[in-house]
Amino acid sequence: MKAVILLSGGLDSSTVLYQAKADQFECYAISFDYQQRHQRELESALQISREVGVIAHQVVKFDLTLWGGSALTDNSLELPRDRSLADMSQDIPITYVPARNTIFLSFALAYAEALNASRIYLGVNALDYSGYPDCRGDYLDAMQEVFRLGTKQGREGQPIEIIAPLLHLKKTEIIELGNKLGVPWQKTWSCYAGGEEACGVCDSCRLRLAAFQELGLNDPLPYLQR
Amino acid sequence: MKAVILLSGGLDSSTVLYQAKADQFECYAISFDYQQRHQRELESALQISREVGVIAHQVVKFDLTLWGGSALTDNSLELPRDRSLADMSQDIPITYVPARNTIFLSFALAYAEALNASRIYLGVNALDYSGYPDCRGDYLDAMQEVFRLGTKQGREGQPIEIIAPLLHLKKTEIIELGNKLGVPWQKTWSCYAGGEEACGVCDSCRLRLAAFQELGLNDPLPYLQR
Repeated sequence: MKAVILLSGGLDSSTVLYQAKADQFECYAISFDYQQRHQRELESALQISREVGVIAHQVVKFDLTLWGGSALTDNSLELPRDRSLADMSQDIPITYVPARNTIFLSFALAYAEALNASRIYLGVNALDYSGYPDCRGDYLDAMQEVFRLGTKQGREGQPIEIIAPLLHLKKTEIIELGNKLGVPWQKTWSCYAGGEEACGVCDSCRLRLAAFQELGLNDPLPYLQR
Repeated sequence: MKAVILLSGGLDSSTVLYQAKADQFECYAISFDYQQRHQRELESALQISREVGVIAHQVVKFDLTLWGGSALTDNSLELPRDRSLADMSQDIPITYVPARNTIFLSFALAYAEALNASRIYLGVNALDYSGYPDCRGDYLDAMQEVFRLGTKQGREGQPIEIIAPLLHLKKTEIIELGNKLGVPWQKTWSCYAGGEEACGVCDSCRLRLAAFQELGLNDPLPYLQR
């Protein structure tokens, strides 16, 4: 059985790839070069997929800076720094990229249908950044319906299934799961800032560091500041 | 009020752009260079959008030949030729591109949200090529739900609306509508075959030619064969 895994190279999607492997699927990774500020994550995605031994890894290229609308695709907008976890969970943050997961899932759907795969795994999480509209369960249910109605496989009664194993886990629980699965954290990449070393102060770094700290564990990734 | 219009450069989407203009929207066109066999259509899309006077026209580039799965994205597959309209309406044809409209609508959604537009117009039609799963009303309803749940605007109670004015029209009715709106047919492009002149024998040419003929009208586009 084949599965397509959305792999950004971050902590969450890397854990999900290891989960798909543990679930005995033939794994096909897909990543996106959308001119994101933190293109460094793609290097990590490639390292992780090699480590797991995926059958193929597609990197789809397009340019979301054409219209911007997010601090991740418009360098004139500043990334939030040093925010508390409480601040992060308010509103929709400026790092929200319009329709990003819908675009990612659409390409994954196309790839999965061309492969005749039965599942798409993705690492969305409804607790962190709870402001992101496209990381919630009701949104995924709506996409599942699109998968059912918008493809040949779906119309023939075999819709490709969306699997989001981390949807309701806390970051600490994701790290515990990843530890069980053997995810090499030092090869993953979460930082939004786009440097060669993780900044330690953007929302993504802070969330990750706080979770390792809460568990009394060391995050093996080097940080400029922590 | 702003609207994003999915514009392939074909007869249907060109009519829809003229409709959006007639509906008094500020028009933003979006087209896709996905390495389709018939890239010639992009030239027509640019001509039509200039003709209408859109505010901006984005051409988003990505590569769907990475995994193929369609005669439009895999040159080793042959295009059907000389098929009757009855044959075309059976099954899902080999020109079906996996998840294509889902990908197109996702980018349109991202662009519309970045622009704060209120509508997305597209020229899908449930009668022609009735096999295409992503050209039916129930599929568009599912995408509308994704628009509502997967974006900031949607979560704030202002979902971007999908408008498909041609959904239930016959090709002859689309041509009549386009004639009323003043669409310059000679600048549109429908042929799948990828030449510099329309082939006249692919499904798309045949459907178009048959509709003009049924109306007793001349299609002003030159054809290699008709």
